Amino acid sequence: MAAKVGIVMGSDSDLEIMSKAAQVLDVLKVEYDITVISAHRMPDVFYDYAKSAEEKGYKVIIAGAGGAAHLPGMTAAIFSLPVIGVPIMTKALGGVDSLYSIVQMPAGIPVATVAINGAQNAGILAAKILAASDEELLERIKEYAKSLKESVAAKSEKLSKIGYQAYLKEK
Amino acid sequence: MAAKVGIVMGSDSDLEIMSKAAQVLDVLKVEYDITVISAHRMPDVFYDYAKSAEEKGYKVIIAGAGGAAHLPGMTAAIFSLPVIGVPIMTKALGGVDSLYSIVQMPAGIPVATVAINGAQNAGILAAKILAASDEELLERIKEYAKSLKESVAAKSEKLSKIGYQAYLKEK
Amino acid sequence: MAAKVGIVMGSDSDLEIMSKAAQVLDVLKVEYDITVISAHRMPDVFYDYAKSAEEKGYKVIIAGAGGAAHLPGMTAAIFSLPVIGVPIMTKALGGVDSLYSIVQMPAGIPVATVAINGAQNAGILAAKILAASDEELLERIKEYAKSLKESVAAKSEKLSKIGYQAYLKEK
Amino acid sequence: MAAKVGIVMGSDSDLEIMSKAAQVLDVLKVEYDITVISAHRMPDVFYDYAKSAEEKGYKVIIAGAGGAAHLPGMTAAIFSLPVIGVPIMTKALGGVDSLYSIVQMPAGIPVATVAINGAQNAGILAAKILAASDEELLERIKEYAKSLKESVAAKSEKLSKIGYQAYLKEK
Amino acid sequence: MAAKVGIVMGSDSDLEIMSKAAQVLDVLKVEYDITVISAHRMPDVFYDYAKSAEEKGYKVIIAGAGGAAHLPGMTAAIFSLPVIGVPIMTKALGGVDSLYSIVQMPAGIPVATVAINGAQNAGILAAKILAASDEELLERIKEYAKSLKESVAAKSEKLSKIGYQAYLKEK
Amino acid sequence: MAAKVGIVMGSDSDLEIMSKAAQVLDVLKVEYDITVISAHRMPDVFYDYAKSAEEKGYKVIIAGAGGAAHLPGMTAAIFSLPVIGVPIMTKALGGVDSLYSIVQMPAGIPVATVAINGAQNAGILAAKILAASDEELLERIKEYAKSLKESVAAKSEKLSKIGYQAYLKEK
Amino acid sequence: MAAKVGIVMGSDSDLEIMSKAAQVLDVLKVEYDITVISAHRMPDVFYDYAKSAEEKGYKVIIAGAGGAAHLPGMTAAIFSLPVIGVPIMTKALGGVDSLYSIVQMPAGIPVATVAINGAQNAGILAAKILAASDEELLERIKEYAKSLKESVAAKSEKLSKIGYQAYLKEK
Amino acid sequence: MAAKVGIVMGSDSDLEIMSKAAQVLDVLKVEYDITVISAHRMPDVFYDYAKSAEEKGYKVIIAGAGGAAHLPGMTAAIFSLPVIGVPIMTKALGGVDSLYSIVQMPAGIPVATVAINGAQNAGILAAKILAASDEELLERIKEYAKSLKESVAAKSEKLSKIGYQAYLKEK
Repeated sequence: MAAKVGIVMGSDSDLEIMSKAAQVLDVLKVEYDITVISAHRMPDVFYDYAKSAEEKGYKVIIAGAGGAAHLPGMTAAIFSLPVIGVPIMTKALGGVDSLYSIVQMPAGIPVATVAINGAQNAGILAAKILAASDEELLERIKEYAKSLKESVAAKSEKLSKIGYQAYLKEK
Repeated sequence: MAAKVGIVMGSDSDLEIMSKAAQVLDVLKVEYDITVISAHRMPDVFYDYAKSAEEKGYKVIIAGAGGAAHLPGMTAAIFSLPVIGVPIMTKALGGVDSLYSIVQMPAGIPVATVAINGAQNAGILAAKILAASDEELLERIKEYAKSLKESVAAKSEKLSKIGYQAYLKEK
Repeated sequence: MAAKVGIVMGSDSDLEIMSKAAQVLDVLKVEYDITVISAHRMPDVFYDYAKSAEEKGYKVIIAGAGGAAHLPGMTAAIFSLPVIGVPIMTKALGGVDSLYSIVQMPAGIPVATVAINGAQNAGILAAKILAASDEELLERIKEYAKSLKESVAAKSEKLSKIGYQAYLKEK
Repeated sequence: MAAKVGIVMGSDSDLEIMSKAAQVLDVLKVEYDITVISAHRMPDVFYDYAKSAEEKGYKVIIAGAGGAAHLPGMTAAIFSLPVIGVPIMTKALGGVDSLYSIVQMPAGIPVATVAINGAQNAGILAAKILAASDEELLERIKEYAKSLKESVAAKSEKLSKIGYQAYLKEK
Repeated sequence: MAAKVGIVMGSDSDLEIMSKAAQVLDVLKVEYDITVISAHRMPDVFYDYAKSAEEKGYKVIIAGAGGAAHLPGMTAAIFSLPVIGVPIMTKALGGVDSLYSIVQMPAGIPVATVAINGAQNAGILAAKILAASDEELLERIKEYAKSLKESVAAKSEKLSKIGYQAYLKEK
Repeated sequence: MAAKVGIVMGSDSDLEIMSKAAQVLDVLKVEYDITVISAHRMPDVFYDYAKSAEEKGYKVIIAGAGGAAHLPGMTAAIFSLPVIGVPIMTKALGGVDSLYSIVQMPAGIPVATVAINGAQNAGILAAKILAASDEELLERIKEYAKSLKESVAAKSEKLSKIGYQAYLKEK
Repeated sequence: MAAKVGIVMGSDSDLEIMSKAAQVLDVLKVEYDITVISAHRMPDVFYDYAKSAEEKGYKVIIAGAGGAAHLPGMTAAIFSLPVIGVPIMTKALGGVDSLYSIVQMPAGIPVATVAINGAQNAGILAAKILAASDEELLERIKEYAKSLKESVAAKSEKLSKIGYQAYLKEK
Repeated sequence: MAAKVGIVMGSDSDLEIMSKAAQVLDVLKVEYDITVISAHRMPDVFYDYAKSAEEKGYKVIIAGAGGAAHLPGMTAAIFSLPVIGVPIMTKALGGVDSLYSIVQMPAGIPVATVAINGAQNAGILAAKILAASDEELLERIKEYAKSLKESVAAKSEKLSKIGYQAYLKEK
């Protein structure tokens, strides 16, 4: 089956964060491609990527970038379907630079921005977008949400059983 | 035909901004409902709204809010399909408060955040999400993008014809 | 005796900070419950918690959360008595996101916000709220304040006795 | 009946904002005093105010200040019962200076901080604190919350009846 | 003579600010072209512009943009000679978004960033770059600097002659 | 008598704010000179000013500047006695740029920084510095502080007499 | 000889930073007292300190504090001679909170603010204030400045002699 | 051959960052001098440096500084050819202070600002400025850009070959 989600990042230093998008798409059984393309260092390659994305069957692209993070916005300028932007945390400014560069897009070219370093949520959001026309995927997303809820519920129960002092010691 | 997009905001003071989402959905011929529900002042009504949204046929919800803007995130906590958040500009902090409250969601519960006051882009993004499974809508979105491009191109041409001094005088 | 203070947080990763509220309530002999409930991952459980809180006898709720920190504000939307919010420090933004999400509540729904990671102060504030109608508790709070004062006074005396060089070496 | 709430501000330029605390206390039938005292320009008068506040019967003090806003924190250093701080918006920094000066109190001396210019919420919070031991006041607070809810509900209904275009024209 | 400086902006709403670059280049007798091209709304046109710029004889490009301001950085990714970026002030964030999006470029792709709305300085900087190999232009730049100095000196003299009260009245 | 305080600013657009330093020095009967010198546009004139300041008898220099506000720090690099810096409010960044440029001086070269647009306080601070060796000036400063106190006290009294509604109407 | 400078801080956790003020005053042979007094935890002791400071012969007070840093401003409200404020760096907000709380004082009550953690500069500034009426101290300050200059000059010479690679290896 | 680029910094603590400018100029075969001069601690030496720079043959100066970073702006006030500013990251404020002090220059005196700690880009920008009149250098810059592109392309290929899990393990 062809990949429906493209995951792209500007540098392999973003891979550790961006791989969390891939992991959650694996859990939700959504096909994806993952690649490194710098809009700044290889603009031609980038243009080709963005222009051919629809043809390749991508329905959503997840783009992560840090600093003057142009990759998500430039992808959204070319690709007509939804683009999700992941602002990568930066050393000097904590990722506020990345966030502003991604979210403050001009009228006409939206980027669906998630939290700083929020690649896992980018994966979930991509799946939700596909689930708008895929009932089975929607079911898997609901299952996943349920598992998150149960994980918190288990911790909550344990805390009320053993008390906070014991809980903190075990951590 | 049932509305596929729900537009919701926490206060009618946000309506002037949020109506831009409605306007662009009108242009793109996407059905929507628009309403005012405060997650803080009427939590029960809000819960009912979010819980029944899938059943009503909404595929996407656009939620706008300012300040401690909880409406988009709480909607995303209940509604399983994509939620788009519009941070409304605020007097004291310019909307940075709204932006952080909407975009910095925890793992598991994404909100697709657009620019501060970016309701028009929220409408376009909602359409793009629906277009992932609707070829005709995708065509209309491409037409719309083309019209934006032509509008800038016309201005560009005029500028190069009459020069910047004349252009500025006419504005 | 029934607990008068509910301490709640969105994730067990906040427990180390939030336990300082519990510790100071122990010192001040105020009964409390402490639990983990995510408003985002388990909205139903959260609603039940907030709705039944008054009935359970809580007079104050202390809610801690980080990032898009909706827990305190949503609690205040449902629970009619005072809610104290503790913004948890975050890696990317230092907790400014948490602070804005908690303190910038709309008219009608106040959250009594304390400093970033200020859970100890949240505990003291909860006790002060109860002390408005409990003379004995007020006395214990005054004793506690006195002990804080004496601790600083002792350090001050030591510093003036041994000089800053010796003081710094001993630390 | 003696006033239970003291409202104090550093300058009469804050009165327009701070009067909203008084107005909501009027609605909720809570007695209060309102005065202008500058901790910086008249420290002796301020000390007397804060020291005698408990004796005068105040159960809560609402203190508003802008810029290097020391009034709420210094009040909390002297008065043993709850102090609510209102950060006043400033021309240069939007009130972030006021907010940080009020909310970032050291361990031991909490100030219950509300939103920038959030004096109305300060009044409601003061009432909620008193309501922890006053069932009738609690009922009035619930009535007030209900009226807020109904006001939004009425707007919501009107919007769904006449549509957003007509609604915006009427505003 | 062929234009040596290209002035480009993403929207004609930036023209009033950006025209100051043109004006100072007129004063310094440097040839330039000025145009409106949106990297987001017309990426193809933009690519052509940036790719053909060297051939057209541009030695420097001045690019102005606001919000998620990608135009300067993307130009620098394609054009091999210096690119000067002008962050345009924005309503919500004052232009911090524009500044970060322009200045925080990754290693390899510098943008010479000037102050928010600093188009006049962008023009001067472009001239200084050309002056590195053009003695006559350098002389004109020195003349221009001298005229700025004399203008301040004249004000200074007037102030010391008539006093500040009279000076303020005349303004 | 020779002037003991030099007041200097980078542009006559700062004069309206900076004149408040002169006014308070008039009240406190401290001699001063006031002038406009741009460290950026006339570095030679500036160097002469700073180097000859001690000889001219200045004991303190008050320097106001906005944006990349180098004037106070460069003055402090040359003049050996105290330099007071006044950060001027800026349109885009509110004066945070001015504040950081003035206050964040490296070890060895302090600038005594006051609030954004705080020229009145700069004047008072200059007087306090001179008062460290001038008993009569110290008395005048105390008188001035007393008058400030009485002005607030009068407002406070009026407020308690006529109530806040009447007070607000009169303003 | 009586101490002419009082150094005070709100907590002994600030001592490591604040001791740098003491060290530079030692170098410049200026007498000082150093002590820990919390304006928040021991307001009475603090008031006595500030009120008796003039009588004890202090000509300047250096006050360091972090977070909602009220100590410098409250000292300046009581003590009539110059107060120098040192904003202490904070974990969550980097010291912006301390800086705003200290520098943004209202008209009438200046605090001479130095850089975040700039205690060394606070010591130098205190000496410069005293030097306004003490020629010998002024000479020692000039000597000190000269030694700073020579230290940089020596590094500069070494760098030009051995090159940056060797210089970096030796560090 | 005489050096065409001067690299200067305010402190040898900036050398590790600033040496990256030197390294890239080595790669691009551009002659440079590198030195440490503090505009604050040795203003006379600094003035001489800036005044004689044109005569020495410098066509561009790269100046790095942190905090109240006046070195780049003061250099630009004296030297008539382009000055590139490198804001050095700071401990308390992450370098926002350095960035604002460098980029927010007044009209007439531009500083070509690069990213926080962006010394490598400062070197490349200096080379691009020289390349405006040096075809061979322009070729070397294009080669360098190509090598950056190939380095990313190689990583991209490897990632698509071995997958992200293997890639992350190898790092």
